[in-house]
Amino acid sequence: MRTPRYDVTAIGNAIVDVLAQADDALLEQHHLAKGAMSLIDAADADRLYGIMGPGREVSGGSAANTAAGIAALGGRVAYIGKVAADQLGQVFSHDIRATGVTYNTTPLVQGVSTARCLIFVTPDAQRTMQTFLGATTQLGPEDLDMDGITSSKVVYLEGYLWDQPRAKTAMRDAAITAHKAGVKVALTLSDAFCVARFRDEFLELVEHHVDILFANEHEILSLYQTEQFDEVVPRVRAHCEIAALTRSEKGSVVVTGNEVHVIPAEPGVRVVDTTGAGDAYAAGFLYAFTQGRDLWTCGRLGGVMAAEIISHYGARPEADVKALAAAVLAAGR
Amino acid sequence: MRTPRYDVTAIGNAIVDVLAQADDALLEQHHLAKGAMSLIDAADADRLYGIMGPGREVSGGSAANTAAGIAALGGRVAYIGKVAADQLGQVFSHDIRATGVTYNTTPLVQGVSTARCLIFVTPDAQRTMQTFLGATTQLGPEDLDMDGITSSKVVYLEGYLWDQPRAKTAMRDAAITAHKAGVKVALTLSDAFCVARFRDEFLELVEHHVDILFANEHEILSLYQTEQFDEVVPRVRAHCEIAALTRSEKGSVVVTGNEVHVIPAEPGVRVVDTTGAGDAYAAGFLYAFTQGRDLWTCGRLGGVMAAEIISHYGARPEADVKALAAAVLAAGR
Repeated sequence: MRTPRYDVTAIGNAIVDVLAQADDALLEQHHLAKGAMSLIDAADADRLYGIMGPGREVSGGSAANTAAGIAALGGRVAYIGKVAADQLGQVFSHDIRATGVTYNTTPLVQGVSTARCLIFVTPDAQRTMQTFLGATTQLGPEDLDMDGITSSKVVYLEGYLWDQPRAKTAMRDAAITAHKAGVKVALTLSDAFCVARFRDEFLELVEHHVDILFANEHEILSLYQTEQFDEVVPRVRAHCEIAALTRSEKGSVVVTGNEVHVIPAEPGVRVVDTTGAGDAYAAGFLYAFTQGRDLWTCGRLGGVMAAEIISHYGARPEADVKALAAAVLAAGR
Repeated sequence: MRTPRYDVTAIGNAIVDVLAQADDALLEQHHLAKGAMSLIDAADADRLYGIMGPGREVSGGSAANTAAGIAALGGRVAYIGKVAADQLGQVFSHDIRATGVTYNTTPLVQGVSTARCLIFVTPDAQRTMQTFLGATTQLGPEDLDMDGITSSKVVYLEGYLWDQPRAKTAMRDAAITAHKAGVKVALTLSDAFCVARFRDEFLELVEHHVDILFANEHEILSLYQTEQFDEVVPRVRAHCEIAALTRSEKGSVVVTGNEVHVIPAEPGVRVVDTTGAGDAYAAGFLYAFTQGRDLWTCGRLGGVMAAEIISHYGARPEADVKALAAAVLAAGR
């Protein structure tokens, strides 16, 4: 077998985030579901932008954040996602390439603009996301670099893409092709509401196509329609080779066929903005995983990356994460 | 006399900043003048963006930052500056209005795009700015809201505008009209290289039209072509009613016809990014000034605002500056 060209190929919605501080009263006044991701149309995007405070624009997109995180750690990553040929599309493309990610998806020339996610960050560091999907809705099977995917160690899929029929087809194609080529298929469930919208499809996917599942507590409970985290472990174990389940301040739990690793959260983090915590966890996990590390170390590096992200505004690393990773990988268990 | 509608009308280049971390080697390799503002064309903007790391986009522009700062403090402010009718223009317009600034300049519909300033922030917190002026070059006398200007306590002009002939005409018109109406005219020299390019014009302006001059040490030394700060005081005193001179970690010096106030810098600030320090100083100063406070308090609030800005990335306030100001104004001298 040839040496894989990429550690990870990530596929997701290519989005520019607009972050602004907000108070709870504003969320209530405009009926925004706190802590969740809601889809909005162009008119709502304009209206909600109008009520937002001064913002900062940073590239986002869940799987793109993960790709950027893996690249920042030194991993070889490709990203597939659709922007428009506009200024925000240029910003997205520049930022992801500047982190060292290979990004060659053809931009959409006519029609809708690059996707934006309006992120209201409340004083408790929680983020409430309102997403206008724009050009991401045009991602289709023709955008997949199957040669790159089959020359990856892992293909990483974003659950948010399930909101788009053509993207969904592309994701299934990618998963099946990857599997046939011996490439591990990873999926993040992305959001509890997203899981609720597509539960049956996610269950089918998890059962038949997913080797590594990422989910937070809300998402995995929603997938299995239970309120007891303990009930999740035997069920997910029967479905996936590996499940990495994040639990905020309780750390994470990594489940395999015969093991359960409980990894405490990093202590002493001053939480500023939780945007991207799950994406960063997946980045740390997958970097260590593709370097052949044990699962406990994978979960630990995931936690260290998440702690870095939540200590500042924005969902991509700012600190020297290579140095953070070197400490984790040298320490081992 | 009717009550002025605005405390301050600010006029400047409407710019979106693109901030990225950089090391000194990158600046040297690409011959970028560290700590200065250089003007670049569209081709250079593309080339330099290409070598930049992942960025964050935040609204900038020197006088616009000052306007946003005054509004954040609770002042009534209008801003005049030219963007294009594009995505970055929308970002600029949203952000300045979201701070409470009145902003009604007609965007440029055809031709060049909204101005961008590529800001390379080095580990020493110094910023090196490469500006593509874009739509700002089209600001002209027709964009001035003379009714608003003559109904302000202060009109604040940005030295950077002197690089554009039509903007320069607009600024002179604004200064003359303001003066006739009894409105104080304030000018910031903006940049030592900018002063060097237009020294004679700035001297003429300072001598005949400016009541309140803002400058940092480099700029004022360049204006009077001296290397001794002590030589500056008698000269600027003969020209302007008030000169507020900032000296980084040495604080600021406020000079009037018969007084010199030396105001120490705020202690204990962890400096992250000095972008916008001068703009924030002017905001604090002008807010206190238009509230009728004494010059020592004006300089002190300027220093407090500058300390807030340099403690984080970006040139507009993030902290609750009203609370900071309340403490300064309550304390008095």
